Amino acid sequence: MKKKAMILLVEDERMDIELTLDAFRETRLDNEVHVVQTGEEALDYLFGRGRFQDRVYAPLPDFILLDIKLPGISGLDVLQTIKQTPKLKRIPVIILTSSKEQQDRITSYDNGVNSYLVKPITFSGFLEVVESLCEYWLTLNINAPNDD
Amino acid sequence: MKKKAMILLVEDERMDIELTLDAFRETRLDNEVHVVQTGEEALDYLFGRGRFQDRVYAPLPDFILLDIKLPGISGLDVLQTIKQTPKLKRIPVIILTSSKEQQDRITSYDNGVNSYLVKPITFSGFLEVVESLCEYWLTLNINAPNDD
Repeated sequence: MKKKAMILLVEDERMDIELTLDAFRETRLDNEVHVVQTGEEALDYLFGRGRFQDRVYAPLPDFILLDIKLPGISGLDVLQTIKQTPKLKRIPVIILTSSKEQQDRITSYDNGVNSYLVKPITFSGFLEVVESLCEYWLTLNINAPNDD
Repeated sequence: MKKKAMILLVEDERMDIELTLDAFRETRLDNEVHVVQTGEEALDYLFGRGRFQDRVYAPLPDFILLDIKLPGISGLDVLQTIKQTPKLKRIPVIILTSSKEQQDRITSYDNGVNSYLVKPITFSGFLEVVESLCEYWLTLNINAPNDD
């Protein structure tokens, strides 16, 4: 495993960003989080376009924490693009959303999401879920390299 | 979430089966485990063939814990078949293997594995990993229904 884990957080709600960053810090795992707030920005980051051209400053993440409801391109479209792109599809994508809609879950799994989590409504519940997912995906799960 | 969670364990090593069942019991989550020991049996179970025809006794699982090295059809082939079958592809498949081979990880992710875990070599480590994965996939992860 790399020394410093890299997480890409795709989230537009300011409060959820702050809570998620707090929870990541609580894990005490050595991680670095890049936050993008739209689907367009997420894809720019992952494809290394525009201001994300330099992989030293915008490295491919160990996992992607993805909200569904985003302005513009939705999280489900971002997921579909990632999982249809050979150099990106091996990166675990975890959806963290307030949506319990059956259709969102179906679309997510049919498009290859690695895991689908629902945001708890309490602060403490939210922190717990983010800590647990962070620990699972950074310490238990073993990734594959992104290039052949 | 259903009252009783159902797990399909695909594992041929007697010792690993016993340890996994012990760990599932330790979680105190209400779960039922069906064990199959070959890739053929796993596919028969999932497709409801032969002695697994009655879904009352062989229900589709909440997640599949899959070993790679199996006699006959390998775990990687089982994974590929699951993820290419619309009525099965939404079931989370977690590979738990002793293989750290890069090629096994690449093939797993390219075929849509939900998570790839490596068996720790100590008993206590093994128990911890199985407990953690069981809790993650049964209490945090939210599944999608398997039929449209």
